Amino acid sequence: MSTTQPARGMRDFLPDEVRRRDYVVGVIRRVYERYGFDPIETPALENIETLLGKYGDEGNKLIFKVLKRGEHEASGEADLALRYDLTVPLARVVAEYQARLPKFFKRYQVQPVWRADRPARGRFREFYQCDIDAIGSKSPVVEAELCAAASEVLTTLGFEDFEIRLNHRQALTALLTAAGVPEQEHANAIVAIDKLEKIGWDGVVRELESRGLAGSRVQELQQVFGVGKPRGGRTALDVHNADMLGPALRPFLGADTEPLWLRNLRDIVDLCRSTPAAESVRIDLSLARGLSYYTGAIMEIVVPQLAGSVAGGGRYDNLVGMFLGREVPACGISLGLERILVVMGERDMFPATVTRAGTDVLVTAWNDQSFADALALAAEIRAGGFRASVYPDADKVGKQIKYAADQAVRFAAIVGDDERARGEVSIKDLSRGMQETVARSAVLEYLKSRLGSD
Amino acid sequence: MSTTQPARGMRDFLPDEVRRRDYVVGVIRRVYERYGFDPIETPALENIETLLGKYGDEGNKLIFKVLKRGEHEASGEADLALRYDLTVPLARVVAEYQARLPKFFKRYQVQPVWRADRPARGRFREFYQCDIDAIGSKSPVVEAELCAAASEVLTTLGFEDFEIRLNHRQALTALLTAAGVPEQEHANAIVAIDKLEKIGWDGVVRELESRGLAGSRVQELQQVFGVGKPRGGRTALDVHNADMLGPALRPFLGADTEPLWLRNLRDIVDLCRSTPAAESVRIDLSLARGLSYYTGAIMEIVVPQLAGSVAGGGRYDNLVGMFLGREVPACGISLGLERILVVMGERDMFPATVTRAGTDVLVTAWNDQSFADALALAAEIRAGGFRASVYPDADKVGKQIKYAADQAVRFAAIVGDDERARGEVSIKDLSRGMQETVARSAVLEYLKSRLGSD
Repeated sequence: MSTTQPARGMRDFLPDEVRRRDYVVGVIRRVYERYGFDPIETPALENIETLLGKYGDEGNKLIFKVLKRGEHEASGEADLALRYDLTVPLARVVAEYQARLPKFFKRYQVQPVWRADRPARGRFREFYQCDIDAIGSKSPVVEAELCAAASEVLTTLGFEDFEIRLNHRQALTALLTAAGVPEQEHANAIVAIDKLEKIGWDGVVRELESRGLAGSRVQELQQVFGVGKPRGGRTALDVHNADMLGPALRPFLGADTEPLWLRNLRDIVDLCRSTPAAESVRIDLSLARGLSYYTGAIMEIVVPQLAGSVAGGGRYDNLVGMFLGREVPACGISLGLERILVVMGERDMFPATVTRAGTDVLVTAWNDQSFADALALAAEIRAGGFRASVYPDADKVGKQIKYAADQAVRFAAIVGDDERARGEVSIKDLSRGMQETVARSAVLEYLKSRLGSD
Repeated sequence: MSTTQPARGMRDFLPDEVRRRDYVVGVIRRVYERYGFDPIETPALENIETLLGKYGDEGNKLIFKVLKRGEHEASGEADLALRYDLTVPLARVVAEYQARLPKFFKRYQVQPVWRADRPARGRFREFYQCDIDAIGSKSPVVEAELCAAASEVLTTLGFEDFEIRLNHRQALTALLTAAGVPEQEHANAIVAIDKLEKIGWDGVVRELESRGLAGSRVQELQQVFGVGKPRGGRTALDVHNADMLGPALRPFLGADTEPLWLRNLRDIVDLCRSTPAAESVRIDLSLARGLSYYTGAIMEIVVPQLAGSVAGGGRYDNLVGMFLGREVPACGISLGLERILVVMGERDMFPATVTRAGTDVLVTAWNDQSFADALALAAEIRAGGFRASVYPDADKVGKQIKYAADQAVRFAAIVGDDERARGEVSIKDLSRGMQETVARSAVLEYLKSRLGSD
């Protein structure tokens, strides 16, 4: 006998879970559509060269690789790999269909990705990403629209306390240089700073010292990256006072009082004022996103009480060029469906109707001769737009009713020999324990009045 | 530079194609829901043992296998495999969650599967299946409900000329025995008969003779499997005259005038009379489904002018037992999304609204100072439920309008310096080439009156 569990780090979704997932995906797609994004889909399997070398060394190791088929299977070689994110496939698609796509292309994509990560709470080996990306413009309007759309998704789902953290790839470099960290140490320092949320400044300092960074510089770093951050709290650099960033950084940046990255961050925040992201966007100079393909603004959306982020993204003006041979500007945000679902589950944020989408009517079977009639009644009920199911075996009626009640079915329709002779149907309301007899021709009318009135 | 094509046999879907797919999937899900089926989802990757040995030798070869990760990668061994159909994962799920699932469980599942088949027209290595299955009852009501649901999906999509072919695994055995084919030749004979549609009786005869079956028996076979089939045409055994099947088979079946399989076929057809499948179901004794796990009724849905079927299914009372150790009756039908889409495309069956779901309004940019205002206007339009996009660069207005027209955007909103000073917006209707000036506060009202009236 085979094992019946799903593979390690993978999940089966039973009906209630599928309905909750579909609800969230539905909201995400509707909002993305309203922002003018168009859907694309790409295959789960990509040629292995398409993915290798795009996610850094760590990423390469986490890619699921597929064996060659047939006579080549024994070679143990892989020629295909499972989608690792939705950004690299998008870059490939933009390069492949450039003639058919508009020069400014806004796409959304909601599909699963696979990573051979160590499974942990909220971390799975198969998980959905819900991405929006805009291809073809370097304008900060792009970042503002992305933040606005992500913001509106979360607001529509009922989130009120999220924060969109914004930084710039070049800010990290500039500030590290300002703090006197030699360029060859930047990568190490960014890895350490990336852990700030998890391990605090003390942890970052220990990590930096263990990597050989002198103590004095570490203090400088803390000062630079802490600009706008009240001690231990969130950054205060929101749309209302992003202007203080320039003056606050002056001691560190010297003559270059407004480098391009700082101007870009201020432009994005200014534009966000006119969007639904106005109240949630913050500049956080310590934000460091892991992926190596980012070139400009980087974003992350966090929710209190959830370690890690519910969304991440940024500008990657070089990635399409890796496929196309010429640069095409691009920027995107990826919402993590699984994280959103975890928080919504913990906070009980799903509307009651989402999982109460059970069957409206179970048509019970009286005896083997009554099935044709039961099927005909079910067909009528369905034609009226309701969900109906025919109980398939002539079990005792009590057993059928219990089955219906256990499945949270609202009504059971009973057509016994007497009812049939009189052209009637008995309808039992399982939520109220009431039973009424209705003319067969009036069943649909009855259901409409009862189910419509809830 | 990497190649930009999708992997062999895989496809990218651009916006119009995604919208067509989503439309069909939407209809399928709505109908399945109305029939009382509940959704489940299973992971793309299964432990390799879960899949091996379930689809016959041919199937084993077509399974995509995933290399072990990390230090085991070099071994060239596979421990995971990509979902090959939705039936085996369902059987595993039923075994795993038996305590949480109702004893009579109706589920639907719409997910991609992967097969390393040779790609051909309409045959891909990644394709969607849309399955309904009912677990826990041997009643012919199950088969009737499945045929009804599949039938209603096709009717709702606009198909009028499909045929649901029905046969029984044991009918094939009984008729082959009646025609004098020795049991050890049954598998070969079924493989040959399965090709009837493609190669005609002459072809089947050649194939059978090449497999060593004597000519006289071949004639008997043709006679037996041709019962109810007018020469060269479709079977005439529909709900109106399925009763003639018994008498017609009497010369072949001898004393056993109504074997269980014949009774079962007649019961299913009788019940279908009371469902939307009434006019499309036919008994076809020559129908042979390839998969080895079927034990009872087998079904296939065909559409004229399309080689192969748009749906297939049957009863498989032993498969869950392979995971659970005890028999659980089960029966299902799988609709092939790709085939349905091919036919609908060729016949132009998509409603015009499906792919005309473009952006309603492009808010153009006048100069770098006007972006904040453009974003604010877009936010208002979106809040009114319309699809809006902000053009991100201050290109010449003519260029922006051309972009909008190329994207089939309906309206372009222009807020130049004059308009802004007067508190107005110019709105150009790109489908009619008209332009009107509207008070900024009345834009939403204007759009409602124009977009609502189409």
